[in-house]
Amino acid sequence: MTPLCRTAILGFGTVGSAVARRLITDRQDFQLTRILDRRAAIKRDGFAAATVAWTTCIDDILSSDVDVVVEAIGGVEPAAEWIRAALNAGKSVVTANKQLMARHGDALLRLAERQGRQLRFEAAVGGAMPIVRAIGDGLAGDRLTRIVAILNGTTNAVLSRMEASGCSMADALDDARSCGYAEADPSADLDGLDAAAKLAIVCGLAFGLRVDPSQIPTRTCATIGASDFAAARAAGNTLRQLAQAHYDRATSTLTISVAPALVPRDSVFGRAAGPQNAAVITGEYSGDTSMTGTGAGGDATAVAILADITAIARDRSAIVPAPALNVDFRLQTQDCSVPFAISPFRVEHRLAEAV
Amino acid sequence: MTPLCRTAILGFGTVGSAVARRLITDRQDFQLTRILDRRAAIKRDGFAAATVAWTTCIDDILSSDVDVVVEAIGGVEPAAEWIRAALNAGKSVVTANKQLMARHGDALLRLAERQGRQLRFEAAVGGAMPIVRAIGDGLAGDRLTRIVAILNGTTNAVLSRMEASGCSMADALDDARSCGYAEADPSADLDGLDAAAKLAIVCGLAFGLRVDPSQIPTRTCATIGASDFAAARAAGNTLRQLAQAHYDRATSTLTISVAPALVPRDSVFGRAAGPQNAAVITGEYSGDTSMTGTGAGGDATAVAILADITAIARDRSAIVPAPALNVDFRLQTQDCSVPFAISPFRVEHRLAEAV
Repeated sequence: MTPLCRTAILGFGTVGSAVARRLITDRQDFQLTRILDRRAAIKRDGFAAATVAWTTCIDDILSSDVDVVVEAIGGVEPAAEWIRAALNAGKSVVTANKQLMARHGDALLRLAERQGRQLRFEAAVGGAMPIVRAIGDGLAGDRLTRIVAILNGTTNAVLSRMEASGCSMADALDDARSCGYAEADPSADLDGLDAAAKLAIVCGLAFGLRVDPSQIPTRTCATIGASDFAAARAAGNTLRQLAQAHYDRATSTLTISVAPALVPRDSVFGRAAGPQNAAVITGEYSGDTSMTGTGAGGDATAVAILADITAIARDRSAIVPAPALNVDFRLQTQDCSVPFAISPFRVEHRLAEAV
Repeated sequence: MTPLCRTAILGFGTVGSAVARRLITDRQDFQLTRILDRRAAIKRDGFAAATVAWTTCIDDILSSDVDVVVEAIGGVEPAAEWIRAALNAGKSVVTANKQLMARHGDALLRLAERQGRQLRFEAAVGGAMPIVRAIGDGLAGDRLTRIVAILNGTTNAVLSRMEASGCSMADALDDARSCGYAEADPSADLDGLDAAAKLAIVCGLAFGLRVDPSQIPTRTCATIGASDFAAARAAGNTLRQLAQAHYDRATSTLTISVAPALVPRDSVFGRAAGPQNAAVITGEYSGDTSMTGTGAGGDATAVAILADITAIARDRSAIVPAPALNVDFRLQTQDCSVPFAISPFRVEHRLAEAV
């Protein structure tokens, strides 16, 4: 009988509250004992769980007997400082924080390794789509060369809504907000900064490269209008925000961008609807591997977080790789001045014509 | 600096030789030291590697200093006996053997756990498509309810060839043999026995159920002719071999089958061409997650095997879950007497209409 895994949650927003509900209702192998939220006094009234102690102070978590800390506050600080403190206090950490992992992931992973603890981050990229394990573990036996992916569920919900209804971006944004997929200010999603952080994490896993997310060229999706979809449709295409990274190992050149792209309507990208994410991962030996899955929302993100807590509970002394990321490569600037990026037609054709 | 991971390969066929080439050419972190093959005297001449000792005797492997044994001989015996002996001798084991894992997987996983060693089997299902990790790790934070999948690359290569060219099954089989995707006797592939073994493994990972592969209802694809494809095409469909498992947790009822099925041509299944595999995994919280990837061939299978060796080398004392599989469920007999199974239209529509 494995001892109960005592868990704390930092941040009781959409993701943190979804994790809390799952831990209380259907995971008897875990015990949720602490929740930190700066508005604990208000939020505790809406969440009835006798075993949970609420706090506004990180020291209450650090000095407690919790085994795993779930970081769901978002943003770089104080999340980075708190994760560092939790690892130093002997806790393992699960995070959904892409900005943090893109900027400080390798240093925090090395700290976790030194501490004999784990830092897991499946939820930081792709929501429930298990792309971190697919690239970091399942395809670790290949030499990967290319990732083409939809990594922002909010933007995909907006664009696929415009495609399906012919509505304006403003109306599609209102719809996404009412479904809980978009925040009041969606610019980090539409402008590509969210996807760029996720793509930087993916480049570390896939190519062993340390990519500064602020150096990834981006072009916004915010200016796309109904007429752009009409024009795309006439040629059998639609528009999606694509994150693309191609690593030429012979010349150590990384070509990378996040931008709106024309994609065939019947492709894995064109078919991604609502908050779905999608990815095509290309390797020298395995060819193309594709994935799709629910990329946004509390329940989907909680699935990835619970998967990581499960992994920690199964094997408390597991080693999560802390690779020494390579910085010795050439970053090729992708031209993001054109309205729509080059569509990954070749990807699609290779998938369709594999016979 | 991690010490070199010394590796032995049992069986120098399509898969074993692909693994050997990869270990020799581009994985300096592993050292291939032993190869066992019953025709070692002949095969060693075609493989120049000074560090490798060839043998026909399993005791030479067991008494050697290898850390990891790759089992690539296939079939249940002597593979099961040799894996048991290797674990008892303190080796970790990586296998691509679905028949073995479907029948003896849980007992062997428990033995590995008792020995403090690892038994990994990503290559047993899906080739390079990392479905074992997706279900067993990445989606372990959900309550999974359904798997619909193409799990046999040979049958898919044959059926998609018939679809694309209008040729007979005999001609498509000749073509698949010349590409190395089909053996002289393809009946285990076409009849569904290979996919049934893989589906049994998947049911253990996804639902925690111990399914006897011989109890899975199957219907052969061998009788499908060119006229069946023509009739399917007229309705926008095509034919694929689908492995399906639906677990109703409320009634503990598992409905399961492997049979030819009508699928929409533009679905993730209809688009799977050549030796590709595909899967749609449904969970209560994450909805549908889909994957596609190269499901057959030495290079693709070697990717999954190298991923498993990499995982062992990263963390020599990692715990691979050995779940206590539940046998207390009702197996619902799917009607396989109809020519083509019920198509998973609902899966497709949910994917397409998620907006």
